[in-house]
Amino acid sequence: MNLPQFSDVLEASERIKEYIHRTPVLTSRAINEIAGAELFFKCENMQKVGAFKFRGATNAVLSLTAEELSKGVCTHSSGNHAQALALAARMKEVPAYIVMPSNSPQVKKDAVAGYGANILYCEPTLAARESTLADVVAKTGSIFIHPYNNFKVIAGQATSALELMDEVKDLDYVITPVGGGGLLSGTLLSVGALSQHTKVIAGEPEGADDAYRSILKGEIVPSDNPRTICDGLLTSLGEMTFAIISKNIYKIITVDDATTINAMRLIWERMKIIVEPSSAVTLAIVLSEKIDLKGKRIGLILSGGNVDLAKLPW
Amino acid sequence: MNLPQFSDVLEASERIKEYIHRTPVLTSRAINEIAGAELFFKCENMQKVGAFKFRGATNAVLSLTAEELSKGVCTHSSGNHAQALALAARMKEVPAYIVMPSNSPQVKKDAVAGYGANILYCEPTLAARESTLADVVAKTGSIFIHPYNNFKVIAGQATSALELMDEVKDLDYVITPVGGGGLLSGTLLSVGALSQHTKVIAGEPEGADDAYRSILKGEIVPSDNPRTICDGLLTSLGEMTFAIISKNIYKIITVDDATTINAMRLIWERMKIIVEPSSAVTLAIVLSEKIDLKGKRIGLILSGGNVDLAKLPW
Repeated sequence: MNLPQFSDVLEASERIKEYIHRTPVLTSRAINEIAGAELFFKCENMQKVGAFKFRGATNAVLSLTAEELSKGVCTHSSGNHAQALALAARMKEVPAYIVMPSNSPQVKKDAVAGYGANILYCEPTLAARESTLADVVAKTGSIFIHPYNNFKVIAGQATSALELMDEVKDLDYVITPVGGGGLLSGTLLSVGALSQHTKVIAGEPEGADDAYRSILKGEIVPSDNPRTICDGLLTSLGEMTFAIISKNIYKIITVDDATTINAMRLIWERMKIIVEPSSAVTLAIVLSEKIDLKGKRIGLILSGGNVDLAKLPW
Repeated sequence: MNLPQFSDVLEASERIKEYIHRTPVLTSRAINEIAGAELFFKCENMQKVGAFKFRGATNAVLSLTAEELSKGVCTHSSGNHAQALALAARMKEVPAYIVMPSNSPQVKKDAVAGYGANILYCEPTLAARESTLADVVAKTGSIFIHPYNNFKVIAGQATSALELMDEVKDLDYVITPVGGGGLLSGTLLSVGALSQHTKVIAGEPEGADDAYRSILKGEIVPSDNPRTICDGLLTSLGEMTFAIISKNIYKIITVDDATTINAMRLIWERMKIIVEPSSAVTLAIVLSEKIDLKGKRIGLILSGGNVDLAKLPW
């Protein structure tokens, strides 16, 4: 299997830098006091489309040749990758075809449509998604950009941790959420290359702990009927992300949704920034005290900020 | 009347810089497209205590002599100035006495108590506030720091625009909200000294348009039974703030609460930051198109981010 290396991350960083935001790293004295540690929040919620996903999608799209691009790109996603790919395609003025489950929230349908993508609805099953996507590829000749099990996507997602490590030195830990594993894999590539002593921890919801179980078992355990408020962390690992994660991860720690919601509210109240539940698992890990992080310097990647403001979990 | 000058602003900036956050200036391509202008948001919502008020309170407290400080400081406020003065006093390890109306929201009482201040409750009338405050001063010997009609407070609030003008050049306009006028007065001092061609506009809720009417009439018109969601903009101008504003302001523009709520939501959704309604009047002015700002470079001071997350206006 051809896996991305750190040199691919550096290439991605050069390739996408004019198109993405270099997101800020914020700190909060109040949250540091509560946590008893020094926290550095990498704010991918402030990335374009409101999530780190724009990094990977942009790297993937910009890596295609003009001929490959000419027929557009496609994916299946109801979440942030859909918006990210739609905007990346629009930047290059090529079509994007997004397969979405028919029961996706209207706010997400609107967001994807707002970026000018063609939406194709399917039944809300994995089989329907995959067959609808296969149809799209056959009919349009567009190129499938997988949300995370994709060489260029992983290299793109890695650029968030690359920027974090460039800006903040001597981190003891970097914590990311884990869903399909694209952000986590990329983070492992960047952190592993840039610092010998910085450990990477992944946070995962207890109700969607397939990555945790995958590492325990030594093979991919599919995400089966996940139940969590973290709607960005429902998917299973892919072959590429599993290979990188299983080789390099320090620890995956699971956390219950109540702790995640508390952490999310703490970030909103004290930092005055909007993060989605999937982002807040990172701080939830620190607050859960499932691992002793007292006095440590910790980078946390806040993966996104796309929430329905009319339906908050408190 | 002894009014602060730009030299006092520079002194304030030096005095407080180790104690405050230099808040970020954020931009949003999406909102720029909607507004048809280039907007630079100075994020005082990310200031300590969640509002610009910490600048003025800190400058006032740090300007007192050790003897003056020894008996503490006091004020009447149910809002951000109360928290700001409480934290500024705690930094210097002196007592703060805060007179609050007994009907203040619990979240505000908790916040002030959380900074270690002594809270004295009074009936929710101006007369009761003032008499309770007079009692406090008589009994404790503490020094009254007015929320805005105070030389050092105005000079402190001016440092926000000072930082904005340092970071972003060639602004055509700077827009601030106006309540008691401390932030607006300070902004006029900084902008007036640093740029000949930058005009200062103040945004005020239609339901609390006493500053607008004060400028029209040429004397202070008291804020009488204000009705607006902008809970930071209910107060009347003071003698000092009126003197500075009436001499230097380009325009005060009023805006209805519906436009302000739309602007607030737009900031939350697109910028992923939390601002209170009083902050959003600045963007509401731009969106209202009551003045032609197309193609202009505009600084907006987002004054604060303290909202009850369980009671959002949508």
